[in-house]
Amino acid sequence: MTRMKSAIKKTFSNFFFEYETPREVLVKNRRVAIVCRIIQLGVLAYIIGWVFMYEKGYQTVDNAIGSVFTKMKGVSFTNISGQERIWDVADYVFPEQGDSSFVVMTNFIPTIGQVQGKCPELPDGKNKCTNDSDCDDSKYKRTGNGHMTGRCMNKTQTCEIYSWCPVEDDRKIPDPPILLTAENYTLFIKNSITFPQFDVVRSNLVEGIDQNYINNCVYHPKTAPLCPIFRLGDIVERYGFSFSEIARVGGAIGVLIDWDCNLDLSIRFCKPKYEFYGLYGTGKNDQVDKASLGYNFRFAKYYVENSVQKRTLMKVFGVRIDIIVHGLAGKFDIIPTLTAIGSGVGIFGVATVVCDLLLLYILPKKNFYKTMKFKDAEICEETPALPQTQEDSESQKE
Amino acid sequence: MTRMKSAIKKTFSNFFFEYETPREVLVKNRRVAIVCRIIQLGVLAYIIGWVFMYEKGYQTVDNAIGSVFTKMKGVSFTNISGQERIWDVADYVFPEQGDSSFVVMTNFIPTIGQVQGKCPELPDGKNKCTNDSDCDDSKYKRTGNGHMTGRCMNKTQTCEIYSWCPVEDDRKIPDPPILLTAENYTLFIKNSITFPQFDVVRSNLVEGIDQNYINNCVYHPKTAPLCPIFRLGDIVERYGFSFSEIARVGGAIGVLIDWDCNLDLSIRFCKPKYEFYGLYGTGKNDQVDKASLGYNFRFAKYYVENSVQKRTLMKVFGVRIDIIVHGLAGKFDIIPTLTAIGSGVGIFGVATVVCDLLLLYILPKKNFYKTMKFKDAEICEETPALPQTQEDSESQKE
Amino acid sequence: MTRMKSAIKKTFSNFFFEYETPREVLVKNRRVAIVCRIIQLGVLAYIIGWVFMYEKGYQTVDNAIGSVFTKMKGVSFTNISGQERIWDVADYVFPEQGDSSFVVMTNFIPTIGQVQGKCPELPDGKNKCTNDSDCDDSKYKRTGNGHMTGRCMNKTQTCEIYSWCPVEDDRKIPDPPILLTAENYTLFIKNSITFPQFDVVRSNLVEGIDQNYINNCVYHPKTAPLCPIFRLGDIVERYGFSFSEIARVGGAIGVLIDWDCNLDLSIRFCKPKYEFYGLYGTGKNDQVDKASLGYNFRFAKYYVENSVQKRTLMKVFGVRIDIIVHGLAGKFDIIPTLTAIGSGVGIFGVATVVCDLLLLYILPKKNFYKTMKFKDAEICEETPALPQTQEDSESQKE
Repeated sequence: MTRMKSAIKKTFSNFFFEYETPREVLVKNRRVAIVCRIIQLGVLAYIIGWVFMYEKGYQTVDNAIGSVFTKMKGVSFTNISGQERIWDVADYVFPEQGDSSFVVMTNFIPTIGQVQGKCPELPDGKNKCTNDSDCDDSKYKRTGNGHMTGRCMNKTQTCEIYSWCPVEDDRKIPDPPILLTAENYTLFIKNSITFPQFDVVRSNLVEGIDQNYINNCVYHPKTAPLCPIFRLGDIVERYGFSFSEIARVGGAIGVLIDWDCNLDLSIRFCKPKYEFYGLYGTGKNDQVDKASLGYNFRFAKYYVENSVQKRTLMKVFGVRIDIIVHGLAGKFDIIPTLTAIGSGVGIFGVATVVCDLLLLYILPKKNFYKTMKFKDAEICEETPALPQTQEDSESQKE
Repeated sequence: MTRMKSAIKKTFSNFFFEYETPREVLVKNRRVAIVCRIIQLGVLAYIIGWVFMYEKGYQTVDNAIGSVFTKMKGVSFTNISGQERIWDVADYVFPEQGDSSFVVMTNFIPTIGQVQGKCPELPDGKNKCTNDSDCDDSKYKRTGNGHMTGRCMNKTQTCEIYSWCPVEDDRKIPDPPILLTAENYTLFIKNSITFPQFDVVRSNLVEGIDQNYINNCVYHPKTAPLCPIFRLGDIVERYGFSFSEIARVGGAIGVLIDWDCNLDLSIRFCKPKYEFYGLYGTGKNDQVDKASLGYNFRFAKYYVENSVQKRTLMKVFGVRIDIIVHGLAGKFDIIPTLTAIGSGVGIFGVATVVCDLLLLYILPKKNFYKTMKFKDAEICEETPALPQTQEDSESQKE
Repeated sequence: MTRMKSAIKKTFSNFFFEYETPREVLVKNRRVAIVCRIIQLGVLAYIIGWVFMYEKGYQTVDNAIGSVFTKMKGVSFTNISGQERIWDVADYVFPEQGDSSFVVMTNFIPTIGQVQGKCPELPDGKNKCTNDSDCDDSKYKRTGNGHMTGRCMNKTQTCEIYSWCPVEDDRKIPDPPILLTAENYTLFIKNSITFPQFDVVRSNLVEGIDQNYINNCVYHPKTAPLCPIFRLGDIVERYGFSFSEIARVGGAIGVLIDWDCNLDLSIRFCKPKYEFYGLYGTGKNDQVDKASLGYNFRFAKYYVENSVQKRTLMKVFGVRIDIIVHGLAGKFDIIPTLTAIGSGVGIFGVATVVCDLLLLYILPKKNFYKTMKFKDAEICEETPALPQTQEDSESQKE
């Protein structure tokens, strides 16, 4: 015992001069061994092949911060009942300053020269009245166009309201859409992304996309996948809709600029991918809820005529385009690498556990292997351990 | 020695026909054993219960790409000193095209018919002057309304400036707010999200939210949590402010559309949750910095009268609503699963380590267990294992 | 055998009263031991120092949801060919309502009093014609200003078009920029962020930034890093461009508000950092693609004169400012902590593996250590290991 104590002391003093490594049993058993090796190789393959090669587990990932600016080009010529009119960018884009989310007017219902005053509510069924009592000012009408005066107009069978008069009549949407030629408008997208963590700035005008190229190209997924100029009609059709349908009632389309960059390679390979999808359940998934079809809004141009404030109200139907930037960049980093390795080693442990279960609870010879593996108190009591000898010799014979 | 060498050769040749598994000591000690089992079971419970069940450690997570469009409804009727006026959507929403971030005008200070010219600066105390020298053009005034001509006007005791005249006087904000009825406006939110990694598109008009329902519902956290139509007054009050206060000086409110989807279940369970919070430190946290209260901006309506360019300047106070989409979706994936298991096994290792410390350094019998656990070189010396002895003695000499 | 069986039964029954711990060899070999300890200490240092201290591996991380609103201040005075004009916020900011992305007009090409009609296309070389056949209506001209009538005007040698007349002539950009004094405008940024996971709301008007301070401060990276008021000229120059150059042709600048918060500390330390970078490849990285220089857009002011609809078209060059919020907050969480520890333990395993390789395949004494480590079936045959017997019997007595 004393010797042991001193030994322990040594152990401490010698902390730096000895280290412990687990003792192992070499199990000479083809079946188990093979199973075990296969599992281990599987784990190894998984860690190297999948985690590292495929999922790039050795990389740390950063999300992009994006900034987009857009510019439409193109003009439309309309001839409504003899009245010729030209529409250019300043007329049909909202807002004008080239935002990442904007609307291109393709159809509209104008109400020209509205002035503040009294006029009958629109006879669209919702606003019927038979006598003045139906036009009680007090009851608030969310969908009304104005403030009820309390009178019921016989002519229209609707309440009189104080409002911008005449009241807009949007009961029938012009068909075909007035600006059907919007199909030919082109959209120029300038997109810049930053990966703050890696301090990388990147523009969608990548190498080779110079002024000269831009002047002539039009985006096409196959032939010109990096051209930043898109034909409006293409965008709509690419996501699988007829332009005339969208143009009439309006619709919203998402343009997803997808950056998936591996910064361990040259930055030149970090290129955008353009994807298109319909918003509001009108695309991909077949959840077609009519409730969400169409896109329109109202805006007014104000002016003063003969010192009377007037406005031209436009109910605008159009293609709303949301440009969304989604960027991911990966770069080698020691932390995720070691984490992956670490948990990989952990999984290795699992392999051994499985093998041991096999060895100790399935195999016919399990008991023998138990004695080998577990230094159980009992074992040594009967040495020279004859039965073992035989078993061993057996195990050799395998 | 030769036998050993050949054994080693075998080891290599037989790599596939034998595998090593650690030898273990079976410690028959209630206290240690129980402690150890409890720790291990704890770890197991943690891994299964927490990591897997609760935190869904077996899922890979993707962030949503969202797109929002909004539509206000409602009209206000004002009667300012006998002058009746109606305000509809085109009048009070900025910008008009239904963005995810917009302002609803609730109060304003109009300055009608401004023209370019010379007029005295506003006598609001900041711009006092006693003689022309105080109105030196050169010194730049960040907060001035115009370009100083160098004259000091006796009447107002302020410098004369070249500016849009008359200068806006915003010293007193109309109280009560002019468009207090904005409370009853309703906001319709259309939101579409995409989880690019899982290729899932989802709209906030989920199953059961059809046109018919929308026509009649108004959002309520309890009774109508999925109705996409919100009463402006409710939004403001929900976040705990009096509407009249916000309406007077303006304020900003965030509407958070929160998607937390488990794509291992049916997509039908992937529903939005609407939350409201005050922006700019006016909400939740009691850091009330008056500096950040109020929200206003100026805009101008330009017109030409008698071929003179004029404008009506509006200082607009309003409720700014920022609609923010925050989406997370989880789906089973093998990588995170194995990573979780792997590190779980690692933690298992910790359990054993703890037990061993207990066993080897705390227990009274520790020495005995040491001999059991550690095959220390000394031990072998006094077994008539002759070949070993020599090697050992060598190893001692080192 | 029967006794063994019963032993196994015991093993099961006693599951809770015994536990297994691996048996180890104490290798008394300075070189190996030291190498091994160093590796292990290295791993330990890495886990504690790097993963925990530096990378805060014990924290769970959440991304911020941000909301920004902006306000410009300042006026410009211009004197174009004797015509004096003042420009204030309502005149030069697009859009007016204080968005996070907006444009400050610094230069412009006005085309006053356009009316719908016929006029010759701009003779800018692109639109030459010699006879009417060159002006074929049918062929669509993406870059044209209007709808060709089919006539070729001799005077200008360009096609006649139906358009807003007169056609804008943007061939030469005013130099110096008309609103060069925009340099002195100031931008006030109000930013509020939310960390939904931690339910923390934070404004960039942090403690100590009160109304009083704001009235007088101007942002400076050293002296006033928290002042939310920025001089436009500073922003541009900070990112390394001459203001006059940007002002003339326009440009886009990103203002990144970076929040990096450690919520384990007091919230007071959670402060914004303002960074500036040029967008569209004009900054940091030397990928200078002229294609992307300049920023401009067109917008129109509509008015009615003598009951004729007219408009003033402005081609606006300006500084576009995108304010981007990027927030990360970390807070202690048990999951990442345990995951880190777990994979740490895994890496520990790696250390041992390395040492063993060293021990078993490099060292001269490798064979001896093999015999020590691996309980190969042969060994037990020749050891009547007596001392063990006694110890075992002791362990029984418990």
